Amino acid sequence: MSRPWHLLLVVAIGFASAIGCFVAGVYFQHNHATRLLQQLVQQDPYAYYISPKIFGVFCFFSSATEPTHRVQRIMKYGFPGLDDVRLYSDFVLSYDRRNRVAHWVCEHLQKSNLQGTRHVIRARAAYRPDLSVPSTFRSTLADYRHSGFDRGHLAAAGNHHGRQIDCNETFLLTNIAPQIGQGFNSGAWNKLEIYVRELAQHFGSVYVCTGPLFKPRPQGNDKWSVQYQMIGSSMVAVPTHFFKVIMVESKLPLGKPYMEAYVLPNTPIPEELTIREFLCDIREIEHLAGLNFFQGIRRSAIFGSNYPSQSQVFRDFA
Amino acid sequence: MSRPWHLLLVVAIGFASAIGCFVAGVYFQHNHATRLLQQLVQQDPYAYYISPKIFGVFCFFSSATEPTHRVQRIMKYGFPGLDDVRLYSDFVLSYDRRNRVAHWVCEHLQKSNLQGTRHVIRARAAYRPDLSVPSTFRSTLADYRHSGFDRGHLAAAGNHHGRQIDCNETFLLTNIAPQIGQGFNSGAWNKLEIYVRELAQHFGSVYVCTGPLFKPRPQGNDKWSVQYQMIGSSMVAVPTHFFKVIMVESKLPLGKPYMEAYVLPNTPIPEELTIREFLCDIREIEHLAGLNFFQGIRRSAIFGSNYPSQSQVFRDFA
Repeated sequence: MSRPWHLLLVVAIGFASAIGCFVAGVYFQHNHATRLLQQLVQQDPYAYYISPKIFGVFCFFSSATEPTHRVQRIMKYGFPGLDDVRLYSDFVLSYDRRNRVAHWVCEHLQKSNLQGTRHVIRARAAYRPDLSVPSTFRSTLADYRHSGFDRGHLAAAGNHHGRQIDCNETFLLTNIAPQIGQGFNSGAWNKLEIYVRELAQHFGSVYVCTGPLFKPRPQGNDKWSVQYQMIGSSMVAVPTHFFKVIMVESKLPLGKPYMEAYVLPNTPIPEELTIREFLCDIREIEHLAGLNFFQGIRRSAIFGSNYPSQSQVFRDFA
Repeated sequence: MSRPWHLLLVVAIGFASAIGCFVAGVYFQHNHATRLLQQLVQQDPYAYYISPKIFGVFCFFSSATEPTHRVQRIMKYGFPGLDDVRLYSDFVLSYDRRNRVAHWVCEHLQKSNLQGTRHVIRARAAYRPDLSVPSTFRSTLADYRHSGFDRGHLAAAGNHHGRQIDCNETFLLTNIAPQIGQGFNSGAWNKLEIYVRELAQHFGSVYVCTGPLFKPRPQGNDKWSVQYQMIGSSMVAVPTHFFKVIMVESKLPLGKPYMEAYVLPNTPIPEELTIREFLCDIREIEHLAGLNFFQGIRRSAIFGSNYPSQSQVFRDFA
């Protein structure tokens, strides 16, 4: 073996290993940072919101596919708004600190979760204030006591029967709003919640976004005004209406989703009215609530002047 | 030179250079990602909000000190709220899509910016809708026309005379709210704006947060309610009150800041009243607006029952 050839080999190997180690270092740091960022994205809803931008920074190597986590699952179709977004074990909520009632609550109902009711006991869950909200902005049990209003669920307790903690968290007062009891919370609103679960049982995967409305009313001589009551010493707003925007995912591989929305007035609703009388254009709710639902999805032509009947929905949509 | 010793040297050098190159690779990727993330933080207010968490991920090497950018400068003491935060060239704003009026506008007034008035001509600025707001949530010039209300600035035009664009952007309708003209916008509110500029001229650095309030009123038999008018076809809310929270930075190296806050009713205010009659506890504004001002700072004892007089502020605070 000649001496120069020997030296050249050493240099070449050295050079190659140097480059190899440099790339390995880049890759190691890339992987390490990506893993930590993915943890952050799973814990912080704002980090999740800007995660496409953050992960855009790490375009050196094609990023490992993010494992599915609950924020990603529940917020798959985008955030309706960004005010004080809070992550719970089975729903995501945006809290209105001025009105001490949620802006919106998003849930993802799956057939599998609705069936695991054996170990979950609703009686074990108790209404309680959410201590993670600063005290100035928190609603308390005392605010609702003797107010004449029910503590109405936004994310329905019956939708979260997968684990006891999921059910318990729906009783936190951030997920509660003042509702008329007789004829609303125990009437039409309850019927609507049952209907949503029926959709989930039938179609497998349903996204629901629920929240309050403070609807302007005409005041005569072309003037409009908003008026609503405040209860308790914390000043909890009594919404004039409540909405539910529902999206049913198609079971077909490239099938379009089916969407419909309801607006119910926070008053006693006669029992003879069916909930389909309260169907409402999603765009109207968006304008009134200042929210944006399921941004990712182009609105289907369904939301014109005629809505399908309930039996049509169950029959025609797959 | 013996053969084994020779080999050992080559292996040692190879090993050291491999480690060196690996670390260099880690460092390179770390630096590259940090630089890109800093760019992101400067463009996206939500990225800035969670930036301590993001940069916590990069704790391998002590991170290079972030260059000072305008979000960091204006939002130095934290975000009052997180709903639809928008970054303008010299102020930061949170937009209330439901009421089509800002939640809050934060400004940082510096003596140097107030003096550069030569090249800025207010007449060149025109009121115009902010087209970056989706049309459903946007207020328009037509909403204010014949409404009986002035287009009142939240971030005052007179505070942004550094560059023409800074002044122009204060005329975007996101920074505008319906205000009573005679006796308010051209009266007490104007006096308050001038007072803030006097503070900035005198002390050098002043942070101001301005916004609307929708104050509950007693309705008899212990009930409280919120009522406010909506104008225009876009439904722009007419606030019942406006607030300004002011923080003056001390010129002393470890000096405590001085804070005070005002709440003015959106009605004609008699000229004989001085603005100091409208001093208000910051905590009350926080409760009413659902916001959190200058979180980083412990409230001084000043906000008790007695406020200092205006001349005392200018005399005693350094």
